[in-house]
Amino acid sequence: MNSESRLVVVAPHPDDEVLGVGGTLLRRKAEGAKVAWLIVTSISVDNGWSQERVDKRSDEIKKISALFDFDQVFTLDFPTTQLDCIPMKDLIAGISNAFNSFMPTEVFLPHPSDVHSDHRIVFDAATTCTKWFRYPSIKRVLAYETLSETDFSLGAHKSFRPNVFEDIELFLDKKLLAMDIYASELGVSPFPRSHEVIRALATVRGAASGYIAAEAFQLLKERS
Amino acid sequence: MNSESRLVVVAPHPDDEVLGVGGTLLRRKAEGAKVAWLIVTSISVDNGWSQERVDKRSDEIKKISALFDFDQVFTLDFPTTQLDCIPMKDLIAGISNAFNSFMPTEVFLPHPSDVHSDHRIVFDAATTCTKWFRYPSIKRVLAYETLSETDFSLGAHKSFRPNVFEDIELFLDKKLLAMDIYASELGVSPFPRSHEVIRALATVRGAASGYIAAEAFQLLKERS
Amino acid sequence: MNSESRLVVVAPHPDDEVLGVGGTLLRRKAEGAKVAWLIVTSISVDNGWSQERVDKRSDEIKKISALFDFDQVFTLDFPTTQLDCIPMKDLIAGISNAFNSFMPTEVFLPHPSDVHSDHRIVFDAATTCTKWFRYPSIKRVLAYETLSETDFSLGAHKSFRPNVFEDIELFLDKKLLAMDIYASELGVSPFPRSHEVIRALATVRGAASGYIAAEAFQLLKERS
Amino acid sequence: MNSESRLVVVAPHPDDEVLGVGGTLLRRKAEGAKVAWLIVTSISVDNGWSQERVDKRSDEIKKISALFDFDQVFTLDFPTTQLDCIPMKDLIAGISNAFNSFMPTEVFLPHPSDVHSDHRIVFDAATTCTKWFRYPSIKRVLAYETLSETDFSLGAHKSFRPNVFEDIELFLDKKLLAMDIYASELGVSPFPRSHEVIRALATVRGAASGYIAAEAFQLLKERS
Amino acid sequence: MNSESRLVVVAPHPDDEVLGVGGTLLRRKAEGAKVAWLIVTSISVDNGWSQERVDKRSDEIKKISALFDFDQVFTLDFPTTQLDCIPMKDLIAGISNAFNSFMPTEVFLPHPSDVHSDHRIVFDAATTCTKWFRYPSIKRVLAYETLSETDFSLGAHKSFRPNVFEDIELFLDKKLLAMDIYASELGVSPFPRSHEVIRALATVRGAASGYIAAEAFQLLKERS
Amino acid sequence: MNSESRLVVVAPHPDDEVLGVGGTLLRRKAEGAKVAWLIVTSISVDNGWSQERVDKRSDEIKKISALFDFDQVFTLDFPTTQLDCIPMKDLIAGISNAFNSFMPTEVFLPHPSDVHSDHRIVFDAATTCTKWFRYPSIKRVLAYETLSETDFSLGAHKSFRPNVFEDIELFLDKKLLAMDIYASELGVSPFPRSHEVIRALATVRGAASGYIAAEAFQLLKERS
Repeated sequence: MNSESRLVVVAPHPDDEVLGVGGTLLRRKAEGAKVAWLIVTSISVDNGWSQERVDKRSDEIKKISALFDFDQVFTLDFPTTQLDCIPMKDLIAGISNAFNSFMPTEVFLPHPSDVHSDHRIVFDAATTCTKWFRYPSIKRVLAYETLSETDFSLGAHKSFRPNVFEDIELFLDKKLLAMDIYASELGVSPFPRSHEVIRALATVRGAASGYIAAEAFQLLKERS
Repeated sequence: MNSESRLVVVAPHPDDEVLGVGGTLLRRKAEGAKVAWLIVTSISVDNGWSQERVDKRSDEIKKISALFDFDQVFTLDFPTTQLDCIPMKDLIAGISNAFNSFMPTEVFLPHPSDVHSDHRIVFDAATTCTKWFRYPSIKRVLAYETLSETDFSLGAHKSFRPNVFEDIELFLDKKLLAMDIYASELGVSPFPRSHEVIRALATVRGAASGYIAAEAFQLLKERS
Repeated sequence: MNSESRLVVVAPHPDDEVLGVGGTLLRRKAEGAKVAWLIVTSISVDNGWSQERVDKRSDEIKKISALFDFDQVFTLDFPTTQLDCIPMKDLIAGISNAFNSFMPTEVFLPHPSDVHSDHRIVFDAATTCTKWFRYPSIKRVLAYETLSETDFSLGAHKSFRPNVFEDIELFLDKKLLAMDIYASELGVSPFPRSHEVIRALATVRGAASGYIAAEAFQLLKERS
Repeated sequence: MNSESRLVVVAPHPDDEVLGVGGTLLRRKAEGAKVAWLIVTSISVDNGWSQERVDKRSDEIKKISALFDFDQVFTLDFPTTQLDCIPMKDLIAGISNAFNSFMPTEVFLPHPSDVHSDHRIVFDAATTCTKWFRYPSIKRVLAYETLSETDFSLGAHKSFRPNVFEDIELFLDKKLLAMDIYASELGVSPFPRSHEVIRALATVRGAASGYIAAEAFQLLKERS
Repeated sequence: MNSESRLVVVAPHPDDEVLGVGGTLLRRKAEGAKVAWLIVTSISVDNGWSQERVDKRSDEIKKISALFDFDQVFTLDFPTTQLDCIPMKDLIAGISNAFNSFMPTEVFLPHPSDVHSDHRIVFDAATTCTKWFRYPSIKRVLAYETLSETDFSLGAHKSFRPNVFEDIELFLDKKLLAMDIYASELGVSPFPRSHEVIRALATVRGAASGYIAAEAFQLLKERS
Repeated sequence: MNSESRLVVVAPHPDDEVLGVGGTLLRRKAEGAKVAWLIVTSISVDNGWSQERVDKRSDEIKKISALFDFDQVFTLDFPTTQLDCIPMKDLIAGISNAFNSFMPTEVFLPHPSDVHSDHRIVFDAATTCTKWFRYPSIKRVLAYETLSETDFSLGAHKSFRPNVFEDIELFLDKKLLAMDIYASELGVSPFPRSHEVIRALATVRGAASGYIAAEAFQLLKERS
């Protein structure tokens, strides 16, 4: 990947970007790429969250933005866990605007088999924003895996099939530091969102690809 | 299955529980299990049904409850054929409450390839309620087949793939009696919801598994 | 196919019928079949389109109707790109009425893997209207491919799998004339909706089946 | 299907043609089609079978040929249960010769997910003999289901997906008579190759398609 | 699982049984089950292996047999890496004899997507030996995953889809001791057959199922 | 792709490399990559071919080698159409030696759904030669499509799913010149191996990816 590389990770909820693409974001940034974060949903007092929780989330987003040194952060502010009630049209408009602004070369999406309906809807909406004649900057589209979502799919007829592996050995520790910012989402093994399980998954994906630690993706489309 | 077994069948509409899991419910109950029925939708005068039809449905539910001797019956009362208009969040909350109350060890869901959108939406919502760290009682999740739904799927890329077969030879007659309670849903062969077709399906599933009559399921997840 | 053949093409938006089934419609009509066009969505001033665009669309529909000499045209007038906000029930009612009126023997549907959510929703709704005991006239159900929709699917776990090929050599030129009516949708290669790409796809599908030009479909169900 | 219809059923072993296509063969013959039987394997004293068994098999083949009134019977005489030891080249040559001689319009093959390796190998070899530029007579290729083979597949990633249903109500009794010729292969329910299970499967396939009894197939390719 | 449980693991090569089913074998044995090991291939001086290597392998098999306390060990002695040259018939006969002798209730097979052709061929042959009317003792058939085989599949259209998870927390250390017996097969991370990767995989499978360490399987068939 | 790129195309038979990867080979070579051709089968007088045909083939290989300016050409000389009779072990050894000699970074394989058994067997054998710990040079493995093989698959449960598209606009004419070297394999449309169909396929693949002409591949594995 050369320095003209521009990555955007589409995260239904904050922390998906760390779990799914955290190591790769850090690596690519270190290699000179521009990186962007598109956060699709948010929480608000109007939607029943405490002001404290809302403030904490806002603080987490600031810290994550700083840690990854994102070149751009997009927040669509759709209500969390309620994307099925949002017109697909509005979702597409939000994602489309972000893509037109950032002009990504690589797009990372949640996987269509994820348990959370927000993830599946984001995948559907973002897919519409990958046609070459409307978004000519995009060269690669990949789906990432999210612990406690992708691994809990019961779909039986579709599943995450990794075919792209990124060496993240040098970046795994910092990925875990990033997860620590979302302390309330973390637990201990066997809880999926835990240091131990994140490390174990990186080891398993690395064993499949020849690295001490790796992140795995499913390539959906590449053109060059 | 020992006596600590607790089964819940999630039925988008009354009669799905008989068609899909009727024999197995009777067998497990006879073996000492606790069984529960979660009815997701209902009909009402407000939704355009006659009072007579609503009363009849209420009577059917009572009779079925008695015949199967359900230990618990949950009714979520969402409007039938309109689940696509219900916030996924509310569906999940309803199913979640039922699961937290009954603490099932085995969950039976409609199949995600079923023709009726209510079936697919119930599958999606219930799937969210099977994570071990939120619903630790659940040990097995299976999908059942519903005559005139599962067999009419045109999806082409997903379909019911039975891998679990339950011997229901001793319970087939009573399953047919249960169906008789839903007399208005029944017809004669080749109509799928008929004694003849229900018997034939039990014979075919039995031939695949060594029993005079069987019900077939697709195991989605088991942990032990 | 004999002269009692009655085809209906279900088009989410005008022009899908030409791209997917144009040659086959012309051929079957020439062979004596009755053909119908079911247009699911429309544009309107209320939905933000200019009067000029709405008039133009109306004119296009008239010209297409004349060119294909449709025996019946059904317009459901649901708002384009917003089918996810329409109750599934209403969509089904609209399609059901059309089927009950036309009594088709063959039904052509958009493919469930298409990128546009309108296509997927139309597929889901129409599927419900193919059960033999409610729609006994229907003998075959097929999915068609739509350039710039079917070929842009990122689903990875389902895709268009053509298994039926129709020789349209004698009708390809007129199919292209039909596309010219939708001039604003057309571009030049490599834009998918272009004469060159439409011709190339016909050549590729023909090479798979022994014809100079062919349209390809995926058979979903046939009974006889 | 008009009277120019020419069907060939490719049977790895005698009795596959009855179980999979028996009713349809009878129906098409009654409608004026030509029908052929291609038996891929045989048993012989050299291969360890008793002379009595070999004679009996020979007698069965004569009776089946008479009952179905086959227009042509091809016997390739490869050793049964040993097709994996036969050069693919020789198998293809045998099937190719038969196809070139009979000039079929429709070809019926065993399903590629069948348990018996002979079935899978016959499918692979016959597939090679369906290219339009070498076998231009072929208009349709379908896979049939064989009780105790197709229903015992453990493949998990491929399976029989019926999409074509033939009404065999008028021919089911004669299909069962044909099976009686293979008396030694028959048992009683739940044994799959039994009158009761054959009838039940016909009922289940019929319920999916609106007939008292049906045979189901998976269309692999059609061109017209 | 009660004490009448009889497990057999079909291992194409020694060490597959440890990698795939090691923890579960130990657990079930501790719970009172009978366990058997069916080793399909062997190495020999005739096939080009040194006497030293052959002796070492013989010693490893003895140690593994002792460690797992197998109730029965079957060795078919087909030449390793050459199963594609063995008549399927002979393979089936060998497996069939073992099954008829041990009368298993549960059968563990390598996964059909494994890279090694020996694994795929063993799966195909063993599948034939699971029909209920020939092997009535069998109640469950499962496929296991083998590090450096299942994870290196490029098949793209089939893959290991775990749906059964066994808690092996108490047995993971002993599983690693068992692997140490095959010292020559072991390496260090990221080499797949290493303590670190085996532990990581157990952690990842456990996170999906609520255990500190788990083995995952794909259920192919269950009847009860 | 930088100048350290080393591509090998594994061709079951000469001409597969042109049909599947011709444009990409020319493009990569022009960009400075090293390219190799691994021809798995050959024809010989011993196998029943005329001396004239054998000489012609030899001449074609020389011309193709010159036109593509291959840095290395490997010929394994297994008998064409008979790979099912060759020990998998020997095939793997041949491919392994070639990979160890050339040290490819990218490997192009025929698709596992191709009709010709030689193609499927080559895929299986080559897959074994892609494990990172034995072939550390390999960074990407892709499957290509071969006209008249990939498009004639009847497998129904697996198929070519392109996800990588290479712009070959500048190289299409030379790809056609390369095909002309295999004059005896060429025909006219609708024959698949014809200028017109090769051009049409390039147009269709290009329309999906934004280029006047493209080749499509299915990425099986990438690591970086």
